[in-house]
Amino acid sequence: MHAVGLVTEYNPFHNGHIYHIEQAKKITNADVVVAVMSGNFTQRGEPTILDKWQRTRAALANGVDLVVELPVFMAVQPSHRFAAGALQLLNDLQVTDVVFGAEHPSWDFSKLVTAERHFNEKSFEQFNATYATQFNQQLNELTGHQLTDPNDILAFAYYKAIIDNQYPIALHPINRLGSQYHDQTVTGTIASASAIRRAVELHEAIDRVTPAETATALAKLKKLPKWEQLYPLLRNFLIQTPVEELHQIYQMAEGLEYRYREAAECELTFQGFIHRVKTKRYTYSRLLRVCLYAVMEITNSQIAQAGAHPYLHVLGFTERGQGYLHQVKKKVEYPLLTKIGQDEHDGLVNLDYRAGKLYQMFTDVEQDVKHAPIIVRKGN
Amino acid sequence: MHAVGLVTEYNPFHNGHIYHIEQAKKITNADVVVAVMSGNFTQRGEPTILDKWQRTRAALANGVDLVVELPVFMAVQPSHRFAAGALQLLNDLQVTDVVFGAEHPSWDFSKLVTAERHFNEKSFEQFNATYATQFNQQLNELTGHQLTDPNDILAFAYYKAIIDNQYPIALHPINRLGSQYHDQTVTGTIASASAIRRAVELHEAIDRVTPAETATALAKLKKLPKWEQLYPLLRNFLIQTPVEELHQIYQMAEGLEYRYREAAECELTFQGFIHRVKTKRYTYSRLLRVCLYAVMEITNSQIAQAGAHPYLHVLGFTERGQGYLHQVKKKVEYPLLTKIGQDEHDGLVNLDYRAGKLYQMFTDVEQDVKHAPIIVRKGN
Repeated sequence: MHAVGLVTEYNPFHNGHIYHIEQAKKITNADVVVAVMSGNFTQRGEPTILDKWQRTRAALANGVDLVVELPVFMAVQPSHRFAAGALQLLNDLQVTDVVFGAEHPSWDFSKLVTAERHFNEKSFEQFNATYATQFNQQLNELTGHQLTDPNDILAFAYYKAIIDNQYPIALHPINRLGSQYHDQTVTGTIASASAIRRAVELHEAIDRVTPAETATALAKLKKLPKWEQLYPLLRNFLIQTPVEELHQIYQMAEGLEYRYREAAECELTFQGFIHRVKTKRYTYSRLLRVCLYAVMEITNSQIAQAGAHPYLHVLGFTERGQGYLHQVKKKVEYPLLTKIGQDEHDGLVNLDYRAGKLYQMFTDVEQDVKHAPIIVRKGN
Repeated sequence: MHAVGLVTEYNPFHNGHIYHIEQAKKITNADVVVAVMSGNFTQRGEPTILDKWQRTRAALANGVDLVVELPVFMAVQPSHRFAAGALQLLNDLQVTDVVFGAEHPSWDFSKLVTAERHFNEKSFEQFNATYATQFNQQLNELTGHQLTDPNDILAFAYYKAIIDNQYPIALHPINRLGSQYHDQTVTGTIASASAIRRAVELHEAIDRVTPAETATALAKLKKLPKWEQLYPLLRNFLIQTPVEELHQIYQMAEGLEYRYREAAECELTFQGFIHRVKTKRYTYSRLLRVCLYAVMEITNSQIAQAGAHPYLHVLGFTERGQGYLHQVKKKVEYPLLTKIGQDEHDGLVNLDYRAGKLYQMFTDVEQDVKHAPIIVRKGN
């Protein structure tokens, strides 16, 4: 059996994802679909609308054969680290192909990766512009292209990861179907994840654009997981912790600890807080990620330690996925974890475990301890 | 002018407190009544039902002339430290007398203090009994008395503080009036503070047992400040913080950090949490105080540093109290603070400032920054 890999968040899993899975199988003739998926927090540092088990169940019921968690220290990262982490795991899982959507699938992304090698590092020292803006200034000068669309940015990062690490994986950028990522309306049978989240918030129907598993889980949702609910925890941490300890928090760089502390002291709502810390230097995504690192008290050394010990936490599989696991389990380099016991949650998967405990602000469901993988069996 | 001092929590201020003030003036012929009052958290480590400014206003409108905050590092302490801190401030404020209620005002508390000097320290090493139980075993052997009632325990602590420090202050224990402290019903015109808090929770009338200032403030209360609301903050801190750092928290002794961590991991409610950490070794009060130290991240070294730098934070005064302040301001040893600026909230009053920020979980009202003292002017 050979496998195609997908890099996913499934926030939530919807009909566009089903199309993506079908395309991936068609293009690659793969026997098995392996998804690496963010856990309970997204790349942007936000809590997912459904927990990782609910999202896994929906994916397995609709074409994915094996779901492996992208650990929080790889997932909640700028796109290049997010992509690199996902491909690192997919490569260890022996996938031969990765299929992904891009706004410009016809671009020669390898060429853009090569161009980046000729960037002038000095030019990134403008403190009144984001890294992305400065990156695009240079890319544009060298290639005439700019990476401004989110999936193009990820596509670039996948190529870079493959080239840098010489992974034996073929990459297949494809067109994205239907609604654009930022479209905020739900029409037809395909809608973007953000449009679906917005519709849920407005109590609008979403069952035409998602499979039943997603619609059912969303129907049971009492309250949308949002940063507003985590803000009291973040605020208290930022106020009570000595500023020199705040400085140890991952990515709390360049004096951000003072901005965060001051904003926490003044602002009683998360919206007020995040607007107050915003500068031209940083995107909201970057600032949200630092919020998560802070509320989880994740330090630079914790990230370094976690990064040195990758693992494969299996969230679920179909019978076909189980067969594939049997096929590759002796070939994978990283520990393959199915059930998380005391040893793992204190050790290897500690950051995911703590992320799960934080996610219990939104759900009573225990996220990691002794949680068995989801198994979806299908009729023939 | 000479002043009588009162050690108070006023949680909330009620008619029994008015009686206490009247008795204090009558017994001592004092011109001025000075109250040292816990801030936004009580000796037991619980949030007060009204904030310190609301309680100050009620006290000043009903017989107290000057209210000074008992800093959180003195207030949220076992009774002997609470009492010692309060008398330390009252002594610096030049009061000549202190009047307080006791269950057995006729006892010779000085004699009990002398008896304690002959205690056998070894006997306190029973880990299946609270300190209080072991204390009373020894006291009973030596004097035939036991300190089991809360105000007797405080009375003992006042005498001990006076004797140990040779403060030139006369102590006057008096009978407590009306409802016992632990009575849970509101009848007549006098009720205990705990009965009043319970009545407020049950939406029962309390205006016959409190002055108008208290009744009005309580009527506006949307939700009773309770540990349940702080629990998500405590739980997250206990889960996200490395256990060796938890061990640095003040009074997180004898392996309590492991009990607290484990209970936080398992329990989604504060009630579940506090029952799970309870042992025969510790009272609920002790465990609640450790909860507050933990959620405020107060370390042993922070307490030691704060204790070395006492201050007098004036919460409010009447014209008479203002006159008294003028009289004593050159005699007091500790800094006399009226308005809290950036220097103070980062420095001297940092712990109170942080307690006030935590108390904003219950109120939108800024507790310390630039808050001027309450001034109550009376007709002649």
